[in-house]
Amino acid sequence: MSQQSATRQELPALEATLSDQLTAFKKSTLKLDLTRGKPGAAQLDLSNALDGLLGGDYHAGAVDLRNYGGLDGITEAKALFAPLLGVSPEEILIGGNASLTLMYQSVLSALHFGVQGAGSAWRDECTVKFLCPAPGYDRHFTICQQLGIEMINVPFTADGPDMDRIEELVASDASIKGIWCVPRFSNPTGHVYSDATVQRFARLAPKAGPNFRIFWDNAYAVHALTDDAPKLLPILDACREQGTEDSVLIFGSTSKITFASAGLGYMGASQQNLKHFKAALAASTIGPDKINQQRHVLFLRDQATIEQHMHQHAEILAPKFRLVLEQLDKDLGDDGYGSWSRPQGGYFVSFDTLPGLATQVVAMADDAGVKLTAAGATFPYGKDPADSNIRLAPSYPTMDELQQAMQVFTTCVKLATVRQRLAAKELVSSELI
Amino acid sequence: MSQQSATRQELPALEATLSDQLTAFKKSTLKLDLTRGKPGAAQLDLSNALDGLLGGDYHAGAVDLRNYGGLDGITEAKALFAPLLGVSPEEILIGGNASLTLMYQSVLSALHFGVQGAGSAWRDECTVKFLCPAPGYDRHFTICQQLGIEMINVPFTADGPDMDRIEELVASDASIKGIWCVPRFSNPTGHVYSDATVQRFARLAPKAGPNFRIFWDNAYAVHALTDDAPKLLPILDACREQGTEDSVLIFGSTSKITFASAGLGYMGASQQNLKHFKAALAASTIGPDKINQQRHVLFLRDQATIEQHMHQHAEILAPKFRLVLEQLDKDLGDDGYGSWSRPQGGYFVSFDTLPGLATQVVAMADDAGVKLTAAGATFPYGKDPADSNIRLAPSYPTMDELQQAMQVFTTCVKLATVRQRLAAKELVSSELI
Repeated sequence: MSQQSATRQELPALEATLSDQLTAFKKSTLKLDLTRGKPGAAQLDLSNALDGLLGGDYHAGAVDLRNYGGLDGITEAKALFAPLLGVSPEEILIGGNASLTLMYQSVLSALHFGVQGAGSAWRDECTVKFLCPAPGYDRHFTICQQLGIEMINVPFTADGPDMDRIEELVASDASIKGIWCVPRFSNPTGHVYSDATVQRFARLAPKAGPNFRIFWDNAYAVHALTDDAPKLLPILDACREQGTEDSVLIFGSTSKITFASAGLGYMGASQQNLKHFKAALAASTIGPDKINQQRHVLFLRDQATIEQHMHQHAEILAPKFRLVLEQLDKDLGDDGYGSWSRPQGGYFVSFDTLPGLATQVVAMADDAGVKLTAAGATFPYGKDPADSNIRLAPSYPTMDELQQAMQVFTTCVKLATVRQRLAAKELVSSELI
Repeated sequence: MSQQSATRQELPALEATLSDQLTAFKKSTLKLDLTRGKPGAAQLDLSNALDGLLGGDYHAGAVDLRNYGGLDGITEAKALFAPLLGVSPEEILIGGNASLTLMYQSVLSALHFGVQGAGSAWRDECTVKFLCPAPGYDRHFTICQQLGIEMINVPFTADGPDMDRIEELVASDASIKGIWCVPRFSNPTGHVYSDATVQRFARLAPKAGPNFRIFWDNAYAVHALTDDAPKLLPILDACREQGTEDSVLIFGSTSKITFASAGLGYMGASQQNLKHFKAALAASTIGPDKINQQRHVLFLRDQATIEQHMHQHAEILAPKFRLVLEQLDKDLGDDGYGSWSRPQGGYFVSFDTLPGLATQVVAMADDAGVKLTAAGATFPYGKDPADSNIRLAPSYPTMDELQQAMQVFTTCVKLATVRQRLAAKELVSSELI
């Protein structure tokens, strides 16, 4: 029954049917998890050759990979991963197992020591603010929150974040020192920033001047689901053309190429930026795990091998995304239950309920054994002003689990929507009395 | 010729002989390095089985080691390494490839967020000071310097750092928030803290109260050179007896057990301390490399295997230490050229020249192709008040290289000493005129 065309008299019956369906799900004691963008086991299997690949040779050229040293990673890994970030091998640092750690260290280093050396430390100013295109990645927002950085929401347009708003804000407020971006297959909306958007980022004229940085988290650089997915303009090149190459710090990792726990995180930046970052980093590390870097060099080899490898990931992931979208289309269609993204890559489907229903839907699903990312998590401070965004992560469950989880999800969305209409009608009725 | 018994007339001839010897070394264009405590290749070879050890099984119990998660490490690694720190498996966190990173994060977390949660952040106070038993580990001091923590030198006694001084200082100054300790085979002096010293640490009554922490870097916990090397009292047990178990953070790693670049760093602490630390840590990591943790679990297996493995290290290291000490005894004897440690474990021999000569000796050796740790590096701010301490690191060079390097070193010590005497005599002579 269409909820949009359902009359006031028909709504209670619809509510009852949906309620019964949910009760049935509860009885089947599901335990499903759609919360995090974790690779599934079949994806992880693609990289099982990593351990043992060295064949007893722990050297890369003259470097003994087992010993201390090499703050910014091995030469071979720099050459391999620089093209993924659109930078040169002199403009990349290869770190440990997480780009998140590099991002955290970059923000921290800017706070404590400044992005330009002595005298530029952000903490010397009363307030430090970041722009946060939202919905976005919760862990970016957690870094800001933990380090006491004030966050300002920025909405999206079809081309990426709202550049008019960003240009206006950064030009008017010197305390705005940074912005978080996931420029390709944005988490969770799936946006790929258009060429015009990237060029506007390169031309930004922040009031904070040389103390402003774009945190460009290109986490899904090679994570397309289809061959015709839009490409991303390399931002460092765009910046160089404008003479703004120091304004951006680029991040990426193999967490969703090889192993989530044991991949490589890397950071691309101008040599000037890397110099400052390395000076700060040196106090906290004896250098990265060079052995794991060499494993990755031997396993991923070259750009063609990476492309082929990512094709195999897409073959596993694409059917899961298809299932999610088909279930949403079939169950919710265009019957006014909300809207959702149709990503061509990345790890998420972004779903917007009618305003005010996300928290309720997530709680209902949890009650029926399906864990969803907490409502609000995709916004700074965990507060979604419209209480409508829910991030769906299809990668980890099996196809069967995913199908069950999506059935529960759509049932919850429908039930919450119908109940909201019923409550509104009661309100109207009682007001009429 | 003995320099002590040499007359004023004989000194110039002695200087000329030593000077000629040094010139001969310079001509042989040596390129030797005694700077860092890096394991030698033969030591690293002992752990070559690590890569490939998983045999394709990426699971530990029900945990998929390849995926995200597990902030404080895998259960199996906790069980294996807890005894090395003298803590229970509930009191350990297994991290990435460096205990240095855990130490840095601990200090940083205490500065920003406090050791006891909200309101206890060190940075809320004007000045934060650390006690630094010196000579000590340069990287400890670098952490303090980078984070703006003021350092106070504390001398050593035979039992470890001067506890009278430490007790007096911490009791009188609330801005003293921490102390760095390397309690077994101290870097570089080789001290093993006596039981009485450990117990006095456990009984410390700092004016900073519950905001004070002992940073107990047990880097050489199982790194004895001889079977009869003194043992260290487990400090967390000693603290528990005094009700001060929250006053200490313990660190260790396998950097000098397996691979320097690709080992495991770990941290032992009360559950209360671990809780606070993990809350701060969570924002900066997606969890440690669990695969490498499992490699270590399979390779090091149990306490007996670790002991056996460390025996093999000792068999490689002991001859190198013997060579260094024999060369020092033979060349310098008790002829007033300085004094040196006779460590029963660890990675260093600590040498003290006559006051005011360390910088000169290091420069002379460098000029002759032998790199030594910079004079002063073993003291806070790189300033040795007596300019006399030089840290010798025998582990990395081969026996041949080590012998050559030691010959150069003792020649430099002798030449600098004789030149100092000559300069003093000239001064006396010219005053007499």
